[in-house]
Amino acid sequence: MTPDAAYEEMLRLVREETVLASCLELLEWDEEVCMPRNAVEHRAEQRALLAGMVHDRETDPRYEELLAAVEGSPLVDDPGAPIAVNVREIRRTFDKERRVPRRLAEEWARVTAMAQQAWADARKRDDFASFAPWLERVFALARERADAVGYEGARYDGLLDDYEPGMTTERVTALFGQLQSQLVPLVATVRGAPETPRTILARDFPVERQKLFVEATAHALGFDPHGGRLDLAPHPFCTAIGPGDVRIALRYDPRDVAQGFFGMMHELGHALYDQGLDPAHYGTPMGDAASLGLHESQSRMWENLVGRSDGFWQYFYPRLRSTFFESLNGVAMESFRRDINHVAPGPIRVDADEVTYDLHIVIRLELELALLSGDLRVGELPGAWNELYERRLGVRPANDREGCLQDIHWADGLIGYFPTYTLGNVYAAQLFAAADRAIGPLDDAFARGEFEPLLAWLREHVHRHGMRWPVPELIERATGAPADPSFLVESLTRRYGAS
Amino acid sequence: MTPDAAYEEMLRLVREETVLASCLELLEWDEEVCMPRNAVEHRAEQRALLAGMVHDRETDPRYEELLAAVEGSPLVDDPGAPIAVNVREIRRTFDKERRVPRRLAEEWARVTAMAQQAWADARKRDDFASFAPWLERVFALARERADAVGYEGARYDGLLDDYEPGMTTERVTALFGQLQSQLVPLVATVRGAPETPRTILARDFPVERQKLFVEATAHALGFDPHGGRLDLAPHPFCTAIGPGDVRIALRYDPRDVAQGFFGMMHELGHALYDQGLDPAHYGTPMGDAASLGLHESQSRMWENLVGRSDGFWQYFYPRLRSTFFESLNGVAMESFRRDINHVAPGPIRVDADEVTYDLHIVIRLELELALLSGDLRVGELPGAWNELYERRLGVRPANDREGCLQDIHWADGLIGYFPTYTLGNVYAAQLFAAADRAIGPLDDAFARGEFEPLLAWLREHVHRHGMRWPVPELIERATGAPADPSFLVESLTRRYGAS
Repeated sequence: MTPDAAYEEMLRLVREETVLASCLELLEWDEEVCMPRNAVEHRAEQRALLAGMVHDRETDPRYEELLAAVEGSPLVDDPGAPIAVNVREIRRTFDKERRVPRRLAEEWARVTAMAQQAWADARKRDDFASFAPWLERVFALARERADAVGYEGARYDGLLDDYEPGMTTERVTALFGQLQSQLVPLVATVRGAPETPRTILARDFPVERQKLFVEATAHALGFDPHGGRLDLAPHPFCTAIGPGDVRIALRYDPRDVAQGFFGMMHELGHALYDQGLDPAHYGTPMGDAASLGLHESQSRMWENLVGRSDGFWQYFYPRLRSTFFESLNGVAMESFRRDINHVAPGPIRVDADEVTYDLHIVIRLELELALLSGDLRVGELPGAWNELYERRLGVRPANDREGCLQDIHWADGLIGYFPTYTLGNVYAAQLFAAADRAIGPLDDAFARGEFEPLLAWLREHVHRHGMRWPVPELIERATGAPADPSFLVESLTRRYGAS
Repeated sequence: MTPDAAYEEMLRLVREETVLASCLELLEWDEEVCMPRNAVEHRAEQRALLAGMVHDRETDPRYEELLAAVEGSPLVDDPGAPIAVNVREIRRTFDKERRVPRRLAEEWARVTAMAQQAWADARKRDDFASFAPWLERVFALARERADAVGYEGARYDGLLDDYEPGMTTERVTALFGQLQSQLVPLVATVRGAPETPRTILARDFPVERQKLFVEATAHALGFDPHGGRLDLAPHPFCTAIGPGDVRIALRYDPRDVAQGFFGMMHELGHALYDQGLDPAHYGTPMGDAASLGLHESQSRMWENLVGRSDGFWQYFYPRLRSTFFESLNGVAMESFRRDINHVAPGPIRVDADEVTYDLHIVIRLELELALLSGDLRVGELPGAWNELYERRLGVRPANDREGCLQDIHWADGLIGYFPTYTLGNVYAAQLFAAADRAIGPLDDAFARGEFEPLLAWLREHVHRHGMRWPVPELIERATGAPADPSFLVESLTRRYGAS
C-alpha cells in the first residue's frame, strides 16, 4: 500500500470513528437535558454498546499497518502540516487505547451512566451513602484504566494524560505549588479588606427573562445560534456534537442572576472554541481541540477576563438593567460590578470568585490523588472534603450537597480532569495578555460592544490550529513565552489586590 | 451448536441490533425536536453510518447458521411461544434485509435526512420546486428497495410489507374499495345536513396552558411521565427510544385548541402501545409492535373513539373550561362537542374529521402508486394532488403547503405507510366494539374518569403480545371475528349519520 493510499484509508477510519463517537455525545447530552428517568438502564445499554464500538475502532489493528506505511514516508516530513499532525496524534491514541480491554471500555460507559443518575438522585436528597458504592466502582475502574494504559511516574499520570496530553502528576503539583505560594498573600490581602455583603444579586431575576438575556448575550459575543443551542440541565456543560451543532446547557437561579449568566459565559468560551475549529478537518486531530486545559482557558477567559471586566459591563449593564428593571432600578454599574466581583470563600466551586477558585481545584486534586491511591477510602470522603474546605478556605459545607456531591465529574468518570481548570486559568491569563498587547486595549473595545477582535485573535492563534502543536508550543507561539502562572497572579493582583 | 445455544446467540445479536437501532431513533427524534439548522449535514452522516451498521447486523450471515440450528428443533414446536415467534420473525426480516445492498441502506438514510430538511424548508416557503428533486430521489430509492426485496404481485407490495407484514396492494385496494362504497352514502348524508360553522375553537388558547392541559390529560389516561416526554415539533409524532423512553412531539395552534389536543390523543395511543409492550422481551419480535396498522389502531382509537366521545368530555370538559376560562366561559359542553366533531371536508389530513379522513388516505395511496410506477411524474404531483382533492373532497388546496407539502412521510422515505392509517381505523373500530362488549359500557366509565379498564383490556388483548400473532389472527382472537370494515362504518354512521 502506498503512503498516500494508507493515509486516505486512515482518514476514512478516523472520521468514521469520530462520527460514531459523536452519536455517543448526543446520547450523553440527551441524558443530561431530555431523557426521562425510567430510561436510565436502556441508556446505559446504548452508551455501553456505542462506547465498545468506538473503542473497537480506536484499536482497529488496521491502524498499525496504515501508520507503519505512512510514518516512514515523506508525507510526514513537515511536523506542523496536517498529515504529520494527524499521524502523530492517531499513533498516540492508538498506542494508548489498544491497551484498554474492550470489557473495561464498555464497563466504564455502563457504570458512569448509572453513577451519574445515582449522583443526581443522591445530590437531590443529600444522600452521599447511596452514591458511595458507585464512586467506589468508578475509582476502581479508573485504577484499572491507569494500569492498563500505563504510566512512567505516578499512576495518576495515566488518567491526567487523557485530558492534558503529556502533563504529569509531578509537573502539575509543582505548578500548583508555585501558584499557591503566589496566591496566598493575595488572598490574605483581599480577605483583610472590609466586608461588603452582596445584596444586589439576591433579588428577583425571572428565569424566562434570564434566558432571553443570556441567549442574546451569547449571540452578541459570537455564538452561532444556527450552529448550536442553549438548554437547561442540573449541571452546566457544553458539548460539541459535530460541525454546526455545539450545545450549551445551563442552570438558572431566580434569585441570583450571576449563576446562569456566568455559567453561560463559561460554557460560551468552550462553545466558541468548538465553533472555531476547522470543519474541513472534522473527524481528525487537526480539527479537534488541543487539550482540556486549553479548552478551559477559553471558557475561563470569557467568563472572567471578558465577563467581569469594566468595559464589558459598560456595554452590557444598560441592557441588563432594562431587562431586570424592577430589581436593578437605581443600581449603579459600579455597585453591580462590586457584587459580581465580590471575593469571599464559599463551599461551591462553580460559584467561586476568581481569586479563591484555584483553591477548590487544589482540594479536588489532593482528594482524587488520595482516593486513587487508596489512602482515602470513599466512605471517608465527606469528612475529608469538609475538613480540607475548613482548613484551606475557612468554610465548612453545611451538607454534602454543597460538599462532595456538588460536582458531576467523578460520577462521569472524569478523574484527572479537575487540574485542567487551573491550567486553563493559567493559559487564559497569558493568552489574554498577549491579545491585549497585540490588538488592545481590549477593555475599550468591549465598552464599544466590540468583541469580534478578541474572537478573531483567538480563532487565528488558538482555535483553527486544532491539535497542530502540543499545548506548551501553542502557548509559546501565541504569546511569545512559555506557560507561566505569573500572568494569572499579575492579572488577579491588578484587579483584586488594590481593593 | 445446540439449538439452545444457537437461540441464545441469536437473541444476543438481535437485542444488540435493536439497541443500535434505538440510537438511530434518538438521532431522528433529536433532528425533529432539537437539532440546530447547521447540523443537517453532520446528522445525515451520523444517520447513514448507524443505518449502515444496523443493516450489517440485520444481514449478519451468522443468522443463517443460527436460524438453521433452531428452526428444525423442538424449541419451535409451539408456534405461539416466544421462541417460535422470535425465530419466525427474525427469519422474515433476515430474508428481506439481506437482499438490500448496504449502499442502498446507507443512501436511504442519507437522502431521507436531507430530504426531510428540504421538505421543512420547502413547506415553510411553500416552494414545492425546491423539494421536487429530493422527492424524485426518494421514489427512485423506493423503487430500488422494492426491486431488491422482491414482490409477487405489484412492486408496491415490496414497500407495503415493511409496515403491514403480509398485506398486498391487491388486498388493500379491495378493502379500500369496500370501505369507500359504504362511506360514500354516509358522507353524502352528512354533507346534506345544515352547515354549522365552528366558532368555539377559533378563540384564544394560550399555548403554555394548552401544554399543561395536554400533559395532565395524557397522564390521566395512563401515559407514564417518567417513561417518556412531550415536546414540540413541526409535525406531530411519537417515537419509542426504548424501555422507559417513549416520546411524543406535538404542534400547537394558539387559536385552535383541537390541533394540539387531538394531536396528543393520537400520539398518546401510539405511546400507550409502546409503553405496554413487554420490557422483558425488549429487543426481540415478541417485544415489538405487530404492525403499523395495529399501531395506528391504537392512536386512532384514543384520538376518535375515546377523545371525541360524550363520556370523555363529561369528565374532561369542566377541566378544559377552567383552564381556558376566558374563551370557554358560558360555552356548553354540547356546543364544544359539536365543534370538535364537526364534519367538513378540508385540505389537511391531520385536521380532517373522522368521516372524511379515509378519503385523504385513498388519495395518497393512489398518488404514491402512480409516483412509484412512474405514471405520475414528480413535477406533476401538485396538480394531480389538487385535482384529486377537488374531485373527491370538493376542496382545492390554496397552495402546496396545504397540498402535497403537508406531510413529512414521503420525505422520510415512508412510501407504503399511508394505507396503515385506514387499516388502523378499521382495526380500531372493531377492537373498541369488542372492548365495549366485554367491559362496557365504556362511555359511562369515561364519564366517571375511568380509562384504566380500556387500557387494561388493550394491554391484555393487544399490547403485551407484541408480534406473537400475525395481525389478522390477533384481531380475530381479540374480537372473535376477522378484520371487517363494517365496524368502522357502523361506528361512524351511529355517531355522525343521525345528525
